[in-house]
Amino acid sequence: MNQSPAIRHALSVKRSEDFAQWYQAVIAEGDMAEESGVRGCMVIKPWGYGIWERIQALLDAEIKATGHDNCYFPLFIPLSFFAKEAEHVEGFAKEMAVVTHHRLIADGKGGLVPDPDAKLEEPLVVRPTSETVIGAAMSRWIQSWRDLPLLTNQWANVVRWEMRTRMFLRTSEFLWQEGHTAHADKAEAMEETLKMLEVYRAFAEGPLAMPVIAGEKPENERFPGADATYSIEAMMQDGKALQAGTSHYLGTTFAQAADIRYQDREGQQTLCHTTSWGVSTRMIGGLIMTHGDDDGLRVPPQVAPHQIVLLPMLRENDGDAALLEYCEGIRKELAGLSALGEPVRVLLDKKAGKATAKRWAWVKKGVPIILEIGGRDAESGQVSVLRRDRLWRSDAKPDFAVRPRADFIADAGATLEDIQSGLYAEARERRDANIRRDVADVAALEALYGEGSDFTGWAEMVWSRPTGAALDAVDAKLKAHKLTIRNTPMDGAPVSGTCPFTGEPAVERIYVARSY
Amino acid sequence: MNQSPAIRHALSVKRSEDFAQWYQAVIAEGDMAEESGVRGCMVIKPWGYGIWERIQALLDAEIKATGHDNCYFPLFIPLSFFAKEAEHVEGFAKEMAVVTHHRLIADGKGGLVPDPDAKLEEPLVVRPTSETVIGAAMSRWIQSWRDLPLLTNQWANVVRWEMRTRMFLRTSEFLWQEGHTAHADKAEAMEETLKMLEVYRAFAEGPLAMPVIAGEKPENERFPGADATYSIEAMMQDGKALQAGTSHYLGTTFAQAADIRYQDREGQQTLCHTTSWGVSTRMIGGLIMTHGDDDGLRVPPQVAPHQIVLLPMLRENDGDAALLEYCEGIRKELAGLSALGEPVRVLLDKKAGKATAKRWAWVKKGVPIILEIGGRDAESGQVSVLRRDRLWRSDAKPDFAVRPRADFIADAGATLEDIQSGLYAEARERRDANIRRDVADVAALEALYGEGSDFTGWAEMVWSRPTGAALDAVDAKLKAHKLTIRNTPMDGAPVSGTCPFTGEPAVERIYVARSY
Repeated sequence: MNQSPAIRHALSVKRSEDFAQWYQAVIAEGDMAEESGVRGCMVIKPWGYGIWERIQALLDAEIKATGHDNCYFPLFIPLSFFAKEAEHVEGFAKEMAVVTHHRLIADGKGGLVPDPDAKLEEPLVVRPTSETVIGAAMSRWIQSWRDLPLLTNQWANVVRWEMRTRMFLRTSEFLWQEGHTAHADKAEAMEETLKMLEVYRAFAEGPLAMPVIAGEKPENERFPGADATYSIEAMMQDGKALQAGTSHYLGTTFAQAADIRYQDREGQQTLCHTTSWGVSTRMIGGLIMTHGDDDGLRVPPQVAPHQIVLLPMLRENDGDAALLEYCEGIRKELAGLSALGEPVRVLLDKKAGKATAKRWAWVKKGVPIILEIGGRDAESGQVSVLRRDRLWRSDAKPDFAVRPRADFIADAGATLEDIQSGLYAEARERRDANIRRDVADVAALEALYGEGSDFTGWAEMVWSRPTGAALDAVDAKLKAHKLTIRNTPMDGAPVSGTCPFTGEPAVERIYVARSY
Repeated sequence: MNQSPAIRHALSVKRSEDFAQWYQAVIAEGDMAEESGVRGCMVIKPWGYGIWERIQALLDAEIKATGHDNCYFPLFIPLSFFAKEAEHVEGFAKEMAVVTHHRLIADGKGGLVPDPDAKLEEPLVVRPTSETVIGAAMSRWIQSWRDLPLLTNQWANVVRWEMRTRMFLRTSEFLWQEGHTAHADKAEAMEETLKMLEVYRAFAEGPLAMPVIAGEKPENERFPGADATYSIEAMMQDGKALQAGTSHYLGTTFAQAADIRYQDREGQQTLCHTTSWGVSTRMIGGLIMTHGDDDGLRVPPQVAPHQIVLLPMLRENDGDAALLEYCEGIRKELAGLSALGEPVRVLLDKKAGKATAKRWAWVKKGVPIILEIGGRDAESGQVSVLRRDRLWRSDAKPDFAVRPRADFIADAGATLEDIQSGLYAEARERRDANIRRDVADVAALEALYGEGSDFTGWAEMVWSRPTGAALDAVDAKLKAHKLTIRNTPMDGAPVSGTCPFTGEPAVERIYVARSY
């Protein structure tokens, strides 16, 4: 009966048809999020928010384990705070939501308008990022070298008034964590910057099963006000790069602007070196475009709100009670197991509804394992196991494995671990197959991405790390093909040869790609 | 040595001297929060935020256990959403932060101003509460009776432009959770409203160890747009009442405004009945004024970020290594224990600094148990135990109990549970001793709170539940003494006698108090 479901409720759009439409379909049909009716802002629905809660729980533990304390800083930043750092404000001024009034009054036509008598003396910016307001706090908190390093983090919403928005990837309001730290010198601040980059890399490649390249951004792609910006870059299934997290060494820029100084061991007043680093709900967009398939999302078990969903084939008759009792027994056993370092998260879905519709709803959401259990399964002590990561192998029907209950439970933990590592391996293999390493000169690059080529992956090249006008020239060449330099990897591999852009000796590798 | 600390670093202000100043001192000297430099907004520092994280973790589990899914809705609400419900908008219009521009430009004088070319067509309100924007989502999500009940919650920041602010109690921006649910009829919505009130009561009296009265607010104190508002009210140490959580039955008011309808089993389009309920960082203010003493805060173990802090008496000599090893052994053993249903949270504080200063910093923060461990303790297998809840008993010095290490560990869990229940019992006893139940008429009430009386507690009275103008008359009498009706308790106790305000037969009890 449940072993051979006749109907396949696939997504309404395939990846190969229209990747952008497919992305929206995964979100909509997987019930993850939706447009809110407020410009550029989305509503994150329970399944999407549940994934975010998993990301928060796991990443927060790493942030705390590396010695950072969570704090909470104001949503509003007075304009004058921003104006202290010219490059920073210039980078954000074009996309800031500005609060100008603190009261509404009737407009006499049945509507409401901001009250002209309640205009703020100084407009407030809704934080696009919090270096300035946290810098002001650091300035108060730090007196001597004993107060360093100061290691803070906050989980918060931020607003950047984006003109073109896309759910999870680029929304006017988004959720993130932003770490902010202050150190005695450059060496310590750089160590912190790279430590958190490594935390992000490990988090992306671990719980998210999303392979990334950790590296430094070119100087023209730095965070406004930073001395150096590092990123993790992931390849989406359409070949584009997604910047999935950044870590910035801010030098003394913000310390100067906010007067963050300490008395060193010799009694001298010295500027701190600061860092900031963040990842956001954008990671969920990366998750979708890394692991989604033509049936919807596949969530890696470590970040799946439910790892196993039990679907009893209820018939609304007298047999249901025994069936539910059988299912509840399995649920309890599974919930007592551990996998991937945590208790297994299992849901018994008793909601009314057709079994087929319910199955496909969970398939589209991407729950790692679905157990369908009918009356006959209960009688014979079986379960029908659907592994979401293997669904794609059959084009006509999901390939259920009918297994004795005890056998399934005995290796349920190992199965979840296998799904987790399998999703990573699959994504890693796909990414590596889509990186071209034989692009020796600009002509080859232009051929690779030019008209007539259907290559959409990345090019790994070498370069001489030009700066200023020379870098601008490289940038212009790349932009003509909608390409950018994603980052320079930090894996320590040796570099030789000549820079194809400048003709000078190459000093490092770069990844060139189209991007989100 | 550590058994008789000579110096007592008490708070800078005593409760009896100036309660409001004392409250600020607990926050400042316990390093919980501080003014941010942004009007009405505070910075929540690690210890304060750590308590909030504990509140979130425990309450979120209860919210999920009662069937609610977390979502995230937009920070910004278009004015037109608000304007749909007259009473609601009137209740909040006077204190709303309004976003009118989405870009800044240079003002030509080195500063920045909102760009007149980037004025929003429709101003956006920074959410003071989310009934309107969540109502719009409910309207999209609910089609039939099968979609009901719809049970959502969000953890978010909200903004109410308060003229007079006080940290944790009333700030322009604050953190909270807001639950929003939709139901098929009044009975189900009322059941939900009261269920969540009970969740709040149990949470306040459990983890927060803060006794509360759960009851209904009088009609003139209802949430703007609600048919009925319920609250939990706690008595602070100055006798004032603190409304620490509210739960609203919203009738069909918001369903009408946002068109939240469902097709019922008979095929009729029917309006939903909705509820909303919330608690905020205000609870931390309640915690301080319930459990704080003249040495600072006392945090109930269930919401303490660290329940036990180990303070090694480091001497910066060769003996430190052995001492730290001894402490680390104790830390590990304690961390392996369970108390109050969770693993024990223990911190080994190795920071540099004078032992006495470190001890008093933890005393002011209110960590439930401090273990001071010196070299001699390590040699003889002892620990010096300081129970924060018993500190007040000695006026000159904290009363340490020197105990064999194994003995302390053996009952550490029970000790934490004893502190938790002891703090509740102490607060309950104080509250009950400060409720007067013999106030038979208005003259007695006026004498109780009038000039020359030093009574600052609550009066429990009976009344006839007047409405409209009759209620206004009661309200005016009370306001003359800065009193309000807090709520009508729902403990089912029988009521007799005559209403002292109207002379009509009494139908229920009320609590009358001054309040925050």
